[in-house]
Amino acid sequence: MENSLIEKYVFGVDIGGTTVKIGLLDVDGHKVEAWEIPTRTEENGIYILPDIAEAIRKKMEDRGIKDSQVVGVGAGAPGPFGEDGTIFRAVNLGWSDFNMKDELHNLVKMPVKCGNDANVAALGEYWMGGGQGYKDMLMVTLGTGVGGGIIHDGKIFNGATGAGGEIGHIHLVDDEPNQCGCGNHGCLEQYASATGAVLVMTRVLEERSEDSVLRGKDFQCKDIFDAAKNGDELAKEALRRYGEYLGKGLAMIASTINPEIIVFGGGVSKAGDILFDLVRASFEKYVFPGAKRTKFALAKLGNDAGIYGAAKLVLDSVNNQ
Amino acid sequence: MENSLIEKYVFGVDIGGTTVKIGLLDVDGHKVEAWEIPTRTEENGIYILPDIAEAIRKKMEDRGIKDSQVVGVGAGAPGPFGEDGTIFRAVNLGWSDFNMKDELHNLVKMPVKCGNDANVAALGEYWMGGGQGYKDMLMVTLGTGVGGGIIHDGKIFNGATGAGGEIGHIHLVDDEPNQCGCGNHGCLEQYASATGAVLVMTRVLEERSEDSVLRGKDFQCKDIFDAAKNGDELAKEALRRYGEYLGKGLAMIASTINPEIIVFGGGVSKAGDILFDLVRASFEKYVFPGAKRTKFALAKLGNDAGIYGAAKLVLDSVNNQ
Repeated sequence: MENSLIEKYVFGVDIGGTTVKIGLLDVDGHKVEAWEIPTRTEENGIYILPDIAEAIRKKMEDRGIKDSQVVGVGAGAPGPFGEDGTIFRAVNLGWSDFNMKDELHNLVKMPVKCGNDANVAALGEYWMGGGQGYKDMLMVTLGTGVGGGIIHDGKIFNGATGAGGEIGHIHLVDDEPNQCGCGNHGCLEQYASATGAVLVMTRVLEERSEDSVLRGKDFQCKDIFDAAKNGDELAKEALRRYGEYLGKGLAMIASTINPEIIVFGGGVSKAGDILFDLVRASFEKYVFPGAKRTKFALAKLGNDAGIYGAAKLVLDSVNNQ
Repeated sequence: MENSLIEKYVFGVDIGGTTVKIGLLDVDGHKVEAWEIPTRTEENGIYILPDIAEAIRKKMEDRGIKDSQVVGVGAGAPGPFGEDGTIFRAVNLGWSDFNMKDELHNLVKMPVKCGNDANVAALGEYWMGGGQGYKDMLMVTLGTGVGGGIIHDGKIFNGATGAGGEIGHIHLVDDEPNQCGCGNHGCLEQYASATGAVLVMTRVLEERSEDSVLRGKDFQCKDIFDAAKNGDELAKEALRRYGEYLGKGLAMIASTINPEIIVFGGGVSKAGDILFDLVRASFEKYVFPGAKRTKFALAKLGNDAGIYGAAKLVLDSVNNQ
């Protein structure tokens, strides 16, 4: 019988190409502390997991947390995962394919559960963020690329080869001359990412002759939103098209999986509710009528989504055993 | 303790607009008998469920099957279902929204589970048909319309409002002048259904001046396949376009849910493996690279898919209690 007066903890780890974010949470999802360590990708990334294990051990020592008080360690990393915890193609960490779950477990000697970082972030937003209270959620992350994660019945929807929720690569435009990073042409990510918004604006500037504060400038996604807010007509046109692309892509996804809510995260989502206005008309135009009322919400956890989701991942896995 | 020597049965019911198909299966999924009764849609369909209950009771009497030998009755019907068993918008049965599960249970006095007919058919193909052995499956039914069902981890993926797997209404073409039955324009169903194939062929005949055995004829989907088999160039072109549409639509879905296998059913699937040749190139062109190796298979159960799936639905529901 556990003594419920003794605080129980869980660690959530979010492994990125530059830094690893580690969170110490209580089992109810309250963040006690979060900190970062560098991701040492040298020598094929052999130091990454030992560094994480050492950081966790040190934190437990510093805070006087015993092994019996820690439910486990969850970790998200940038790659698809097999069901057994094998990570594939995490090239930007320097890794070849290996069983990350087993290796991290051997280091920390506690229950471990691993998952794809985008899916894990979606689980975090479902648990403690913008998707709280909804069991079927689509998370779309609008950053340098377009990522995503599907939560179905409160759990990550992985798909057969871990590519479930890879919504950035839904095909959208037939005659796109530029190639997407995935090798295809005309993927959602090519228009709906922050980089995509810049491409869309660049094309508007090429097509149209009117003046714009962005003409001849080296601009970023945020500058387009700012210009539109200040009445720049071409920036407004670019955002209209941006919303049309994103709304159409989300409509295709919602026609397939019919989520209760779509949670928008990533850098572009900092634009706030205006994003919903841009997307809603296009979404409703293209989506199956039965899914028209899908709710929209903004992500709430920012860069912490990964540590929350990783913590939830191991909590669920231990509770289901 | 059950006596395992006494045979256990389950009933699977597939309610269509014209006939109700009822299947008596053993719990291992072997069909003992299947028969049909008319669907009496008059007076808002009030006779449909009592007719089913009576048919089941009579069959049990005829065969000397006791209540204790029947695990339950599963039923599929054409409409979205709420989690509690409420069916919505089953207008072609004459029904207004009501709790079908409770009402059928009151009539048969056995465990009952209900679900959308397309989803239930997908579950049947997963259990005993083309998807056997795969836990994550997409079923696409190419008939008068395009229906579908997603099986995730061996269970029906319903979505928030029961519209999960309504893949016939994925948006595919922007400038389609014709309206789809759902009210939108350019849905997958408008091109990839049997009716859609006829539309595609009609457009090829309009565009091109070459001769064709179908020119000036009143033809159906099967005639296009036959003509193409006999070397008709315009029919071949129509099927090439048909495959392009269907492959693209399936690619969008597979990029979202990443199934292990796609099972093709419905009238058009009687064309056989040639369908895969038509679809594969387009599918691989548009799908996310991680999902390129998705398997294709033909449905195996034909019109029996619904009774198998309905039986499995109630078996799972009873076993999970």
